[in-house]
Amino acid sequence: MKQTLTHFDAAGHAHMVDIADKAVTHRVAVARGSIRMKPETLALVKRGSAKKGDVIGIARIAAIQGAKRTADLIPLCHPIPITRVAVELEIDEAASTVHCTATVECDGKTGVEMEALTAVQVGLLTVYDMCKAADRGMVIEQVRLLEKHGGKSGSFVAA
Amino acid sequence: MKQTLTHFDAAGHAHMVDIADKAVTHRVAVARGSIRMKPETLALVKRGSAKKGDVIGIARIAAIQGAKRTADLIPLCHPIPITRVAVELEIDEAASTVHCTATVECDGKTGVEMEALTAVQVGLLTVYDMCKAADRGMVIEQVRLLEKHGGKSGSFVAA
Amino acid sequence: MKQTLTHFDAAGHAHMVDIADKAVTHRVAVARGSIRMKPETLALVKRGSAKKGDVIGIARIAAIQGAKRTADLIPLCHPIPITRVAVELEIDEAASTVHCTATVECDGKTGVEMEALTAVQVGLLTVYDMCKAADRGMVIEQVRLLEKHGGKSGSFVAA
Amino acid sequence: MKQTLTHFDAAGHAHMVDIADKAVTHRVAVARGSIRMKPETLALVKRGSAKKGDVIGIARIAAIQGAKRTADLIPLCHPIPITRVAVELEIDEAASTVHCTATVECDGKTGVEMEALTAVQVGLLTVYDMCKAADRGMVIEQVRLLEKHGGKSGSFVAA
Amino acid sequence: MKQTLTHFDAAGHAHMVDIADKAVTHRVAVARGSIRMKPETLALVKRGSAKKGDVIGIARIAAIQGAKRTADLIPLCHPIPITRVAVELEIDEAASTVHCTATVECDGKTGVEMEALTAVQVGLLTVYDMCKAADRGMVIEQVRLLEKHGGKSGSFVAA
Amino acid sequence: MKQTLTHFDAAGHAHMVDIADKAVTHRVAVARGSIRMKPETLALVKRGSAKKGDVIGIARIAAIQGAKRTADLIPLCHPIPITRVAVELEIDEAASTVHCTATVECDGKTGVEMEALTAVQVGLLTVYDMCKAADRGMVIEQVRLLEKHGGKSGSFVAA
Repeated sequence: MKQTLTHFDAAGHAHMVDIADKAVTHRVAVARGSIRMKPETLALVKRGSAKKGDVIGIARIAAIQGAKRTADLIPLCHPIPITRVAVELEIDEAASTVHCTATVECDGKTGVEMEALTAVQVGLLTVYDMCKAADRGMVIEQVRLLEKHGGKSGSFVAA
Repeated sequence: MKQTLTHFDAAGHAHMVDIADKAVTHRVAVARGSIRMKPETLALVKRGSAKKGDVIGIARIAAIQGAKRTADLIPLCHPIPITRVAVELEIDEAASTVHCTATVECDGKTGVEMEALTAVQVGLLTVYDMCKAADRGMVIEQVRLLEKHGGKSGSFVAA
Repeated sequence: MKQTLTHFDAAGHAHMVDIADKAVTHRVAVARGSIRMKPETLALVKRGSAKKGDVIGIARIAAIQGAKRTADLIPLCHPIPITRVAVELEIDEAASTVHCTATVECDGKTGVEMEALTAVQVGLLTVYDMCKAADRGMVIEQVRLLEKHGGKSGSFVAA
Repeated sequence: MKQTLTHFDAAGHAHMVDIADKAVTHRVAVARGSIRMKPETLALVKRGSAKKGDVIGIARIAAIQGAKRTADLIPLCHPIPITRVAVELEIDEAASTVHCTATVECDGKTGVEMEALTAVQVGLLTVYDMCKAADRGMVIEQVRLLEKHGGKSGSFVAA
Repeated sequence: MKQTLTHFDAAGHAHMVDIADKAVTHRVAVARGSIRMKPETLALVKRGSAKKGDVIGIARIAAIQGAKRTADLIPLCHPIPITRVAVELEIDEAASTVHCTATVECDGKTGVEMEALTAVQVGLLTVYDMCKAADRGMVIEQVRLLEKHGGKSGSFVAA
Repeated sequence: MKQTLTHFDAAGHAHMVDIADKAVTHRVAVARGSIRMKPETLALVKRGSAKKGDVIGIARIAAIQGAKRTADLIPLCHPIPITRVAVELEIDEAASTVHCTATVECDGKTGVEMEALTAVQVGLLTVYDMCKAADRGMVIEQVRLLEKHGGKSGSFVAA
């Protein structure tokens, strides 16, 4: 593990890290998170997805757009030429939960982990927004990077 | 509990809900979430906060700015005249976690729950971004509304 | 008809018009436009709306979000506290066209005509984007204000 | 003609299409549209362009800036490194119309059709905004792609 | 003079100050700044303003739009319902300088000083951008608040 | 010195200049500016930087984010893939001034002078915002390009 945080220079000042000398490689990141809700709320989401009032479809669009806003939201992120965003939302009745998984890819000098995580967060927030009149006690949980590939630091796969 | 989702009309089409007839009242929302990391990573965050490389201070600024971007990110949110945003981040060594709590207030026709939740999410994502070179296995968890007050639906306090 | 354009001062310089002394009233604007395409393309749109690949649903979300970006896009528009956005898209097989109608409301000092028109334009552009691999010859046409109400200039209803 | 819409995967879920394997080529798109108004309104526009109150000049700037906002507005568009935007507006007295033509270029993996169309739409909306106090009955019409070049699908020239 | 900075709470943490209890009053702010350049560069600006290549007109539009982006750019600024923006640019041959003065007004709970200053800065940066191929040594100087009125702290007029 | 402004075409119409044929080279720009304030105000800034209420740290973050917004703010700027942003703020007690220096780098077809200048302006505006309750007479001055390297026009170093 690195003993310092790369987003700070030797004087401890925040900077956007210099990536000019890094190679342009193909990079992929997959992130995932969940929102847990009452079974009755999940039933409303499920009903909508099947017929009308499509919570899942709207959250997917918001997540894709969220990936594109990452450098606006996260102060030290580089703007990145994203080449692909795919977002899946699954209804898990056993856990009374909606899971959101985002895959982001680019050909660039730095990775797309933050883009994938931001997509997941915006997707889950959008589910919260659309269901909150029915259930304010929903909890977003287990948002994490599942895997990333490409770049000098190589691959990461969550345990 | 409402049996339908208000963000859809009778035909099941998404809309930005009509709030014209709602009263302008003072509204407050408090949201909270956490990011769990290795103890060694938390030590880096803590060291920075005390001396230099201020992860906590930067995450706080990103969270405050994130609250202002809510209507840009969440498709069906109304633009809201925020009157206050306060964000606290606490280092919890026992849980090897940073907690983020955001309080947002407005005088308006609809609540600021989404603004508070978005602030928390952007704050935690910013911590992730600044620590990710040291630890890609961090997990964002327990993001939820703690309480909200004001408006016709009255107060909500998490159990 | 006014003999001058209000967006310019006496010297001919553009400005954002002073609305401080205008009354806060409830204002509504409805705009509409269409995109004409090949019957085969329309069939793809229609198939998706019924089952999967929901062009109409995505265009609706983009239109709602577009209304919120109006003051960012149109240089002399005031930022406006929108209270409602509703967007309908209809498939018109006789005309081989998709029609988009947006209704925007606010309680404010200036009208929401531009917000309604911008919603329509972004909705139609989104249909274009999603269908363009199949049909680059689509034409957006007849984008216009249908009606507006509220404010000192009173109501307008298109002939 | 393709029998499916590429913006949806096999399950019918929207995604931002993978362009990583597409070649970086020089790409050009030209779009055009018009706004029809009363002859008296057109006279105001014309007078301003010649002397002061420059509707045409402001619409051109708004259109150029609009091209840069395309990926923000259209949910499934990729962010694109635009290398050129040129926008012409012509006053057509015979048709009592202002025509807007936008040319956008990039060196990238996907085309700039949407950027050119968005530029045209924002340019025409800006004309509408500046003339609406004089004439709310203006109609935006015939917004379409004139031509595009570059990329695997080759050239398109409107009939 | 206040002995503390209001943008920090008792613990020294940045926050967006609570303005809920402040009165809604009419507020005005006027800011001004200048960009000094070589006489030959100023001649190019002047020529364009008179005939074509309108640097001054474009900088004015950019400044007006910049005022609307203030809360996006300045971390602790509140979003504000601007009711008027007017921007003047004057060519001062004696000083080989372009002066930019912005007046911003609102009816709100906090002032518009930052909006006026941001408008000036964006206007001057736009002049720089358009003239930089001819003159990279231009200097932006004397950007300051000229006056502000309204609100509890009353009027300020620069010495 | 060029005798024309490149941001206008032969007809005098503004355009985003065609950079497709320019080489991708490494480019660096350094800009600098200052904000002068009362010694008592500077003392507040200094106290905060040392202990709490970190004006300098927040201005640095705002400046870095500002660099990323350049193409949104300046109408004819190209979107640029920034590879590094570093911002220094120094307290100069002799001059009762805070100096802000921004360095921006990219590998691209056009330079990053505007990004460096925008970072400086947003950083200085943020200092103004945080200190304005104590001192409305602060003056931003001497904002200029210090040096730039890379690209066909070669290096520039301020006299």
